[in-house]
Amino acid sequence: MPFSYQVLERSSDSAARLGRLQTRHGTVNTPVFMPVGTQATVKTLTPDELIRAGAEIILSNTYHLYLRPGTDVIAAAGGLHQFMGWDRPILTDSGGFQVFSLGDLRKISEDGVEFRSHLDGSRHFIGPEDAVRIQMDLGADIIMAFDECAPYPAEREYVKRSKDMTSRWADRCRKAHTRTDQAMFGIIQGGMFHDLRRESAEEITAMGFPGYAVGGLSVGEPKPLMYEILDELVPHMPKDKPRYLMGVGSPDALVEGVLRGIDMFDCVLPTRIARHGTVLTRTGRFSIRDLPYARDFQPIEEGCGCYTCQRHSRAYIRHLLKAKEMLGYRLTTIHNIHCLLALMADVREAIRQDRIAQFCQQFFAEYAG
Amino acid sequence: MPFSYQVLERSSDSAARLGRLQTRHGTVNTPVFMPVGTQATVKTLTPDELIRAGAEIILSNTYHLYLRPGTDVIAAAGGLHQFMGWDRPILTDSGGFQVFSLGDLRKISEDGVEFRSHLDGSRHFIGPEDAVRIQMDLGADIIMAFDECAPYPAEREYVKRSKDMTSRWADRCRKAHTRTDQAMFGIIQGGMFHDLRRESAEEITAMGFPGYAVGGLSVGEPKPLMYEILDELVPHMPKDKPRYLMGVGSPDALVEGVLRGIDMFDCVLPTRIARHGTVLTRTGRFSIRDLPYARDFQPIEEGCGCYTCQRHSRAYIRHLLKAKEMLGYRLTTIHNIHCLLALMADVREAIRQDRIAQFCQQFFAEYAG
Repeated sequence: MPFSYQVLERSSDSAARLGRLQTRHGTVNTPVFMPVGTQATVKTLTPDELIRAGAEIILSNTYHLYLRPGTDVIAAAGGLHQFMGWDRPILTDSGGFQVFSLGDLRKISEDGVEFRSHLDGSRHFIGPEDAVRIQMDLGADIIMAFDECAPYPAEREYVKRSKDMTSRWADRCRKAHTRTDQAMFGIIQGGMFHDLRRESAEEITAMGFPGYAVGGLSVGEPKPLMYEILDELVPHMPKDKPRYLMGVGSPDALVEGVLRGIDMFDCVLPTRIARHGTVLTRTGRFSIRDLPYARDFQPIEEGCGCYTCQRHSRAYIRHLLKAKEMLGYRLTTIHNIHCLLALMADVREAIRQDRIAQFCQQFFAEYAG
Repeated sequence: MPFSYQVLERSSDSAARLGRLQTRHGTVNTPVFMPVGTQATVKTLTPDELIRAGAEIILSNTYHLYLRPGTDVIAAAGGLHQFMGWDRPILTDSGGFQVFSLGDLRKISEDGVEFRSHLDGSRHFIGPEDAVRIQMDLGADIIMAFDECAPYPAEREYVKRSKDMTSRWADRCRKAHTRTDQAMFGIIQGGMFHDLRRESAEEITAMGFPGYAVGGLSVGEPKPLMYEILDELVPHMPKDKPRYLMGVGSPDALVEGVLRGIDMFDCVLPTRIARHGTVLTRTGRFSIRDLPYARDFQPIEEGCGCYTCQRHSRAYIRHLLKAKEMLGYRLTTIHNIHCLLALMADVREAIRQDRIAQFCQQFFAEYAG
């Protein structure tokens, strides 16, 4: 069996759980944060550096890879793992979210989405079957059904139609998927409407996917609203399948998601803010470009085990960023990725010891956003 | 003794020689190529990656570091080694070449150079004593006297005046230098005029520096002219001191320089062309951005031992460069630096075995520029 998920421990005072994904490229311990490698590279880093930072699985983007270098190139390389030199598990999104984010450049119909490339304006069409075919060619271990992610805010009527179509598309994706060495996850939509979320969960889980994602959150709504939807939705998701909250990666939201029974997360946040000079710590974040760090020869975070904190000072990193030196972006990226992965490792240990509620209480006592 | 140079072997049929520099940060085997870390970083790379590529010494730029982050910041860090996390030898240039390159932004007098910062237009003055003081604060193992590098082409009259002033400045630098744990090299100027070169060599070597550089070459003149100057000049340089040809780093010029008795080289070429997608090989260079490499899954250079060639294909690197992903620039930089350092390691081995002339003959038979 190429893909399986097993719950190892359940928290006694929350929905948090410890689990393990088995894929043909190895094991992933959950709850897990997946760094994002949009264009077949987690920006600035080598695969070796990702491993050193503790990454067990990464996410890559179907839309971007389809446009450049092209699915055919990656297939000719023997698949995405081979192409980018990463031999641990990969999850690809369906391209849906990116395509919908194109705004005026795309047109949605029951068949799929017609859009213009953000690179050269060329015309393309991706429907559910295309998204699956592309993802089969890319060869990730986990692939995603093609969905429509409704914007926030959105009218109930729009969200309902979108949710219904997402369910029909999920069914078409399921039927188009023939690779037995990949797991396809279904995506639950329904915006901020409890009943639509419940309906979506029923429709999608009825199709019997090996895992389920919550899409359409972290799209601009206040965080308490996201947590409310999770409180409502997660109990309607299968207990024996992995649950993936898409596009979420701030430390506080990771912890809140784990407490509500989420097993997988992905987000560009740690890599994106790193390139703007913002570094994460266990207690919040700060901009290392600020003047006070010019002569601060401490590491970014005292006690951090990452490569950056072992070797380089805030003052040096600030200098590199001010001088627009690429090494600066690398060092902040390494730290931010490590920071989230170390948080998740601590979260897993706390679940294993059944003290996750206590862990979270302490985390939030120290966390200042 | 904090600095010494020893000749280990001499070629029997050329001026090539094998040597060893001892510094307080360790040993450097010569002939050596020094990668350039202009702003306290060899662009895109960590110190660890430089070591893995075989770097024994790097060069950094006084002018850039003086302006940003500022000499005071680096002194507060405990010096440049500490600041950038590189514990092997460092050579700093005097800032002269960069300041003269500012063109209209600078004014030269006997005292020194008044200039405006290329960063913010602020006014500065650096004279010989200032250049030495800054380099003492930076704390490199080898520092350079402050010289004027005459442009090419230039009138004899201009070059003569410039050469004379460079000699007076060298004497002022020598007198201002008080750190006994640093070696200061003198710089020979004289443009493309044989007699001026000879005069400069006499004047500068009379001051008794522990090493001598040839400045003012590779400034736009045809390569045969540079080799002619070296043929004429090197015999007038001390046999028991290291000879450093500044700003030279193309594979063919390295080999030609070694044959003429040069021990040290530096150049931004391997790192600069890497960022434009041009990679060096033992037989020449090519642009990996070109279309034929889109589906070429071989390494950049078959048999190359660098990290890039061990892990990644031309097709992947091309994709990264086309997508402007920083990892692409890193991978081409690693390869180019390694390529020159491996060439120099082979050159040293050939001198040790006294077959450098044969080695060079074979090198040029395969080299297509």
